[in-house]
Amino acid sequence: MASDRLRVAMVGHGFMGAAHSQGWRTAPRFFDLGVETEMTVVVGRDAERTEASRRQYGWQTASTDWRAAVTDPDIDVVDICSPGSSHVEVAIAALEAGKHVLCEKPLANSVAEAEAMTAAAAAARASGVRSMVGFSYRRVPAIAFAKQLVEAGRLGTVRQVRALYLQDWLADPEGPMTWRLDKSLAGSGSLGDIGAHAIDLVEHVTGASLATVSGTLETFVTERPLMAEGVGLSGTASSERGQVTVDDAAFFTARLAGGAADGAIGTFEATRYATGRKNGLTLEISGSDGAIQFDLESMNELRFYDATAPAGEQGFQRIIVTEPEHPYMAAWWPTGHLIGYEHTFSHEVKDFVQAIVAGEDPSPSFEEGLHVQRVLDAVERSAADGSAWTVI
Amino acid sequence: MASDRLRVAMVGHGFMGAAHSQGWRTAPRFFDLGVETEMTVVVGRDAERTEASRRQYGWQTASTDWRAAVTDPDIDVVDICSPGSSHVEVAIAALEAGKHVLCEKPLANSVAEAEAMTAAAAAARASGVRSMVGFSYRRVPAIAFAKQLVEAGRLGTVRQVRALYLQDWLADPEGPMTWRLDKSLAGSGSLGDIGAHAIDLVEHVTGASLATVSGTLETFVTERPLMAEGVGLSGTASSERGQVTVDDAAFFTARLAGGAADGAIGTFEATRYATGRKNGLTLEISGSDGAIQFDLESMNELRFYDATAPAGEQGFQRIIVTEPEHPYMAAWWPTGHLIGYEHTFSHEVKDFVQAIVAGEDPSPSFEEGLHVQRVLDAVERSAADGSAWTVI
Amino acid sequence: MASDRLRVAMVGHGFMGAAHSQGWRTAPRFFDLGVETEMTVVVGRDAERTEASRRQYGWQTASTDWRAAVTDPDIDVVDICSPGSSHVEVAIAALEAGKHVLCEKPLANSVAEAEAMTAAAAAARASGVRSMVGFSYRRVPAIAFAKQLVEAGRLGTVRQVRALYLQDWLADPEGPMTWRLDKSLAGSGSLGDIGAHAIDLVEHVTGASLATVSGTLETFVTERPLMAEGVGLSGTASSERGQVTVDDAAFFTARLAGGAADGAIGTFEATRYATGRKNGLTLEISGSDGAIQFDLESMNELRFYDATAPAGEQGFQRIIVTEPEHPYMAAWWPTGHLIGYEHTFSHEVKDFVQAIVAGEDPSPSFEEGLHVQRVLDAVERSAADGSAWTVI
Amino acid sequence: MASDRLRVAMVGHGFMGAAHSQGWRTAPRFFDLGVETEMTVVVGRDAERTEASRRQYGWQTASTDWRAAVTDPDIDVVDICSPGSSHVEVAIAALEAGKHVLCEKPLANSVAEAEAMTAAAAAARASGVRSMVGFSYRRVPAIAFAKQLVEAGRLGTVRQVRALYLQDWLADPEGPMTWRLDKSLAGSGSLGDIGAHAIDLVEHVTGASLATVSGTLETFVTERPLMAEGVGLSGTASSERGQVTVDDAAFFTARLAGGAADGAIGTFEATRYATGRKNGLTLEISGSDGAIQFDLESMNELRFYDATAPAGEQGFQRIIVTEPEHPYMAAWWPTGHLIGYEHTFSHEVKDFVQAIVAGEDPSPSFEEGLHVQRVLDAVERSAADGSAWTVI
Repeated sequence: MASDRLRVAMVGHGFMGAAHSQGWRTAPRFFDLGVETEMTVVVGRDAERTEASRRQYGWQTASTDWRAAVTDPDIDVVDICSPGSSHVEVAIAALEAGKHVLCEKPLANSVAEAEAMTAAAAAARASGVRSMVGFSYRRVPAIAFAKQLVEAGRLGTVRQVRALYLQDWLADPEGPMTWRLDKSLAGSGSLGDIGAHAIDLVEHVTGASLATVSGTLETFVTERPLMAEGVGLSGTASSERGQVTVDDAAFFTARLAGGAADGAIGTFEATRYATGRKNGLTLEISGSDGAIQFDLESMNELRFYDATAPAGEQGFQRIIVTEPEHPYMAAWWPTGHLIGYEHTFSHEVKDFVQAIVAGEDPSPSFEEGLHVQRVLDAVERSAADGSAWTVI
Repeated sequence: MASDRLRVAMVGHGFMGAAHSQGWRTAPRFFDLGVETEMTVVVGRDAERTEASRRQYGWQTASTDWRAAVTDPDIDVVDICSPGSSHVEVAIAALEAGKHVLCEKPLANSVAEAEAMTAAAAAARASGVRSMVGFSYRRVPAIAFAKQLVEAGRLGTVRQVRALYLQDWLADPEGPMTWRLDKSLAGSGSLGDIGAHAIDLVEHVTGASLATVSGTLETFVTERPLMAEGVGLSGTASSERGQVTVDDAAFFTARLAGGAADGAIGTFEATRYATGRKNGLTLEISGSDGAIQFDLESMNELRFYDATAPAGEQGFQRIIVTEPEHPYMAAWWPTGHLIGYEHTFSHEVKDFVQAIVAGEDPSPSFEEGLHVQRVLDAVERSAADGSAWTVI
Repeated sequence: MASDRLRVAMVGHGFMGAAHSQGWRTAPRFFDLGVETEMTVVVGRDAERTEASRRQYGWQTASTDWRAAVTDPDIDVVDICSPGSSHVEVAIAALEAGKHVLCEKPLANSVAEAEAMTAAAAAARASGVRSMVGFSYRRVPAIAFAKQLVEAGRLGTVRQVRALYLQDWLADPEGPMTWRLDKSLAGSGSLGDIGAHAIDLVEHVTGASLATVSGTLETFVTERPLMAEGVGLSGTASSERGQVTVDDAAFFTARLAGGAADGAIGTFEATRYATGRKNGLTLEISGSDGAIQFDLESMNELRFYDATAPAGEQGFQRIIVTEPEHPYMAAWWPTGHLIGYEHTFSHEVKDFVQAIVAGEDPSPSFEEGLHVQRVLDAVERSAADGSAWTVI
Repeated sequence: MASDRLRVAMVGHGFMGAAHSQGWRTAPRFFDLGVETEMTVVVGRDAERTEASRRQYGWQTASTDWRAAVTDPDIDVVDICSPGSSHVEVAIAALEAGKHVLCEKPLANSVAEAEAMTAAAAAARASGVRSMVGFSYRRVPAIAFAKQLVEAGRLGTVRQVRALYLQDWLADPEGPMTWRLDKSLAGSGSLGDIGAHAIDLVEHVTGASLATVSGTLETFVTERPLMAEGVGLSGTASSERGQVTVDDAAFFTARLAGGAADGAIGTFEATRYATGRKNGLTLEISGSDGAIQFDLESMNELRFYDATAPAGEQGFQRIIVTEPEHPYMAAWWPTGHLIGYEHTFSHEVKDFVQAIVAGEDPSPSFEEGLHVQRVLDAVERSAADGSAWTVI
């Protein structure tokens, strides 16, 4: 960076913009980042709404010219929270302008886009420019702690992994049509939206890569009522119906290679029809010496089973991951005091900024984001090919 | 015993009679008792109903003459399942006739009765006659395992104990009057009925005795609708109301002495107003090195917390108590296959008969039953004395 | 039946023989079967061990001649608990002799055998002979209650089903070779042993049939230490290793047809590598109006989610299935008192005998057992064909 | 307020100062407060440490002169986070200077102090000055939702309440002496520190007041190792021991009056010896029509039991309190995304500021804080009087 502070431009100001803003605002209050950070500019398409977001989220200025913002010599960091279709253009422009880039997941809407972005990141890396993908759930302390347990060999050889991302907002077949169900707008359905998280978590925690997949995509409800005015979750339903063109649910089995899970089999599911589950990203890992269970709806907890304990004393142990010994937690509140969803973004900002300061490459890299994209692509290809096993 | 087999007379054939019958019928099928047992005679007041029970529960004969049955030279064991008010007379007659006696809890309806029974048991013991009180929850494998953990020092010095027995069948204030709410018939309310179990469990698991208590008894609903025909849980409600003369709920704090819990404080509750809890006998024990949690509604599980585990790896461990290493469980099914309420009676029969065969005194003894009676009495005296601390 | 009582011959006296004996012994004590039942003869191959089982389980006589026993004119019912390879011969002989047959699952070791048995059962049915397959988990009260909820439409249209049978006795790669891992002896691995239960439960509870499957079979550890003396779970390990020739784990996705789950997708898993899970048969069903969750390790509980409840008041409800309103439970203990694994066999005996008395066909029929066999076969074929979707 | 913005002075910058700062910083980003707020000055005793806190928490200026700060004409709001012994002086000075006051709990270290503060608050109220006590757990959405359920009559007549505050940082008897265990410095032990929260929650949720109490205080470990340098949780233990002069644990039973819990009995416990429980504020309320359960260690969840549901369908329902229909939650993240401990302070700031803007008195008032003080005092008097029932 050119100065004693990092000036940040955030592109996009929807749900992810709110979450990232909270991260930029809060991280310096709880972590020693090694540098001052400045919430310099928020960028959006609509001047009025962008200005409203500026005020609400606490950015210094607002802009509707993303290219000017991300190439501004006064900007050091570009944080991309805009829709997936815009990632490729913004990220490459920012990287070429020498800005460090934090890009929301999924990295892009296609493998080709992700490849272009990864090439740009690799080129920029040579001159010390850092890039990272926003798989924020890696920064849930219970997940980071699970990774430590795996790395310390506490699970032994991992044989099976199960990663489900369970939501239910489509369970009602009369729920309205939205842009998220239109492939031309959303790119993909539950697979890319939430399945991507499940893939990244498994690879991150086990240190293995998905090598081949056999998958199925399903659209249970193919037509949904159109809202009288535009698409959206509120409004008056009209009698007309729109065509759902993305997957409602994705199911796939994968063979893993490398790390503690070499040769393991993983089962994956991403669905919006899991009635009663709101944000149920669940992860179960079974190894020769132990096992772990995680559920994002109880994100401060990790269940750990130590299969090397004496016979009769084994059981899943509910660890409340709020001890100072746990990743990230020394910075927050006393033991037993929970953190929430948004804290993962403070952790993300912390890790990203500290890597920039240290001159190291943060993780997940664009290469890792590209790999997830390739897995998604392989699942789609397998599903189109009658669930045939497909190499990633 | 006079022969190669133990012939059993069971007095009473209500709920407890059904449970004990299942114990006598099943124990020899799963445990090596060291002797044949014979379900010789069931005794009741009404000839027709007793004969029906004989057929249903599988006893060889039925009788309405309890005294003849319990003094019959062909009988070796008397199992008393009749109402508490009858315990003193039947038990003493049986003991004086040289029969081994298993007596349902509570031992008696008063301290004086329990003292007389205990004296009779002590006298009979001299000539090898065995006696035991039916606190069957000691024989829940998870409870027996909890006791092993305490005895092995895994909890360190126990500081606090919480034992609640939570039921809800009186939560509805328009629930009908029954004989159980009439002190002249039932002797006592929730304190004696279910509180006695909580007291025995705490003393059994910790090895300590309650020494002094401060207690409160409460009757929330003092009048309840009388049934048009007699008292009972079914039938048509009449417009008349009956007077509730027993406690609805009992609350007491105790100081413990001896064992691993010397100097500890115990908090106790017995209630029939714990809406949503059906048979919630819960036990929590906190020590310097560990803690346990138990709930009878999940009776195959014990939660154990090891406070000596490494920092960051501590958590309540859900142990499914179905391993062959666990008390009683090697006799039953493979690991992970649950047992139920009635199994505690098979365990009770097993322990009782094996003690008879071995010529040893089984536990809980009548002395222990008398002690529980004294605790109940002290709680009542404390409650009558404005919760003043009362020596047991 | 020829008389006022049903005389039973039980073939086989291992784990299932013990469980069925407990069912025959206990069912008449808690249910009105409408007829006397008599535990007439237990049949085994080894005279000494069969006699020991006779004494332990309480059968009147023991025999080593299965054919004589199952064709004995004094026998009314044949209960087949012997290994799967023997089912076809014993069942057909018994049916042809006009005996009612209860046959343990899986119905047979192959589709061809199951077809022959089903044909025999169909022929016998014409003359009033009843036959049933022992999928005992249908008789877990929580499962029977779940089926009632589905049938009452409380889940609406079922979209997704997940049925996992999770055990962990192979998680240790140094666990010894046993006959269960040898295809020539066991026929199949986790797929047939435990996966069959998952298939039957899904079809039973939803009323739908699996129509097509895409599956994967995996053997994680292909060689295991041979015991110095024979194969078995105890004994001294030798330095030699045996070849594992069955599946360690099976994974499959199915499309369902019919019932409340027409068009639904089911995901299935059967594994012996789920570290920490001992007998984890879990069932989750998601519908447009509600959902249920079940875990055999907490078999007295059903989680129910009512998606039609007011916004803000929805949540998975932990129903303790011990109320008199719940299937089978009025016969047992007061509310909140749990039952265990073996009770499912009392329920099975009850339903089977009551059907015989009523002159009705019990369920699951041999046809249903054959169907499960065909599903297992289709999974194997799919797995051999690169997980291609395969019609059942 | 004199202007279009509220300028805040915060006195104290320890644990509570960090939490309140996060509240002041975050509340305006998620809620429409109706006015701008300004984090104007943080006040501490040590200039260097106060300046460090200023930078870390984001206040504009730092000061060591609390009186100057709280009487500064430019200040509108005083937020008191300093130790309890200082509350009386600071609060009265601020109120007399016409500042709105938010005062951390407990309101004061004695009833006399609390009375003086309450008189000052009452006097100031006449001229529109607002005051509030910081019982932040009222602002846990699950607690606020529980209160709504009680107020809507969903629990019917409340009969029993159980409120436990369970921590374990003293479970190890060799844990060091700290100022919190010295009565001259801390004023009180677990009773005032955490028991106060339990009292306030019960009164808040039920709408009833504690009327009389019977209590016991206990110090299990009376001497603890002194740190070589000063008192504190870190450092080297010396061989000398200090005297513990506060209660380790407090137990009390109370009769409630008013609201939905008129005539109910409440049982309370506050302890630092509940091994394995870190921040276990648990609340259970049982009524004629329903019940609720809450545990702060799972603060996003409320268990609700509807006793008016059909027989067989009743069960504790795990409601994840993250729906837009739930109190405070529409402002945060999508359904199923958790919030944490610190969010209660944003809610506190929101409610406090909105009340100031609306010209209404916020709750809990100083009168309510005084009442909690009186309950604590009555428990201490009862404990000193052999647990005699004591009027509050």
